[in-house]
Amino acid sequence: MQVPIEDRIAIEDMFTAYCAAIDERSDANVAASYYTEDGVLDNRALGSPLIEGRGAVQETIGGMFASMANLEHYLSNFLLQSMDANAAAAQTYVQAYGTPKGGDAFAMRGIYRLEARRADGVWRIARLTFLPFG
Amino acid sequence: MQVPIEDRIAIEDMFTAYCAAIDERSDANVAASYYTEDGVLDNRALGSPLIEGRGAVQETIGGMFASMANLEHYLSNFLLQSMDANAAAAQTYVQAYGTPKGGDAFAMRGIYRLEARRADGVWRIARLTFLPFG
Amino acid sequence: MQVPIEDRIAIEDMFTAYCAAIDERSDANVAASYYTEDGVLDNRALGSPLIEGRGAVQETIGGMFASMANLEHYLSNFLLQSMDANAAAAQTYVQAYGTPKGGDAFAMRGIYRLEARRADGVWRIARLTFLPFG
Repeated sequence: MQVPIEDRIAIEDMFTAYCAAIDERSDANVAASYYTEDGVLDNRALGSPLIEGRGAVQETIGGMFASMANLEHYLSNFLLQSMDANAAAAQTYVQAYGTPKGGDAFAMRGIYRLEARRADGVWRIARLTFLPFG
Repeated sequence: MQVPIEDRIAIEDMFTAYCAAIDERSDANVAASYYTEDGVLDNRALGSPLIEGRGAVQETIGGMFASMANLEHYLSNFLLQSMDANAAAAQTYVQAYGTPKGGDAFAMRGIYRLEARRADGVWRIARLTFLPFG
Repeated sequence: MQVPIEDRIAIEDMFTAYCAAIDERSDANVAASYYTEDGVLDNRALGSPLIEGRGAVQETIGGMFASMANLEHYLSNFLLQSMDANAAAAQTYVQAYGTPKGGDAFAMRGIYRLEARRADGVWRIARLTFLPFG
């Protein structure tokens, strides 16, 4: 698969910026803007329901911001798996740390499977699935 | 050192894909295919013998797949150290986690020194050496 | 922000090489050479005084090398935030581990804010600020 390096970096940067918006815990609207209008957040491996559509994603992220005192997502091992002009599939590993307000810190490690789609020149998350290791 | 960005990314991607094949623990043949025919796996710092040749590497990886219930290799700090048309040296940091079948989870951190060689347009591992920190 | 990929990679590589020089703990002069003449190291979030100028940075790094038995800086989530011809701002996440000589190992996680400047074709650290998570 020979892809323009600009596109590859644009997808990786988009996902890094999304995780930065999550870890800043300041603006759920900004964080949700990284999703397509029909974007899907799939944390079912963590026992969460499937979240469908940018509005529902924003609500979920807002709830997380309200409940968490700290969030950290360390990304690595970015791998582009398929790509055409306006759609791509990639994965990254993640080491994540969280501290709920009034709760104990926890850690998680796993793989994010990312389906990205480009519209109006901007890559966005069409579907994000977390698959824990172990 | 001014190197084509395509080559640099090809080497980093190759090594990331190799680690994904290791962490999937499903096909030692695929994992070993990332080595050159005369590729060397040097985990002597962990007390392992030097493994020489793709066939021996495949056998070693197969043994590891049979014995491990979980493997995770988080790569970072990729640094290309030298490169000419068909050979390159690089290093990456790694945070590794493993769980033997019926055993206790362990963690390791260190540096992978990678010698890569290109044949028929494909970059492969000519020698991989793990050097633990500390 | 559309930036030449060569510059982006040059900045990321420079910072990765700087962290490798720190983790090698062998030559404070080499490590300090990644800073501009007026470079600033801001670890005030860790209780350290602000270090101003390459000479003072080198002295600080030399003192750290003398006192530490192990250092590891795992970088991830590189994000270029602004860039013009000869100045750039970026951030990376870091998971750091250290062991003082005769002391206990510790871990830190946070964000490095990097201001980089280019002179004579070489990108250097103009200011480096560590901001711990949590």
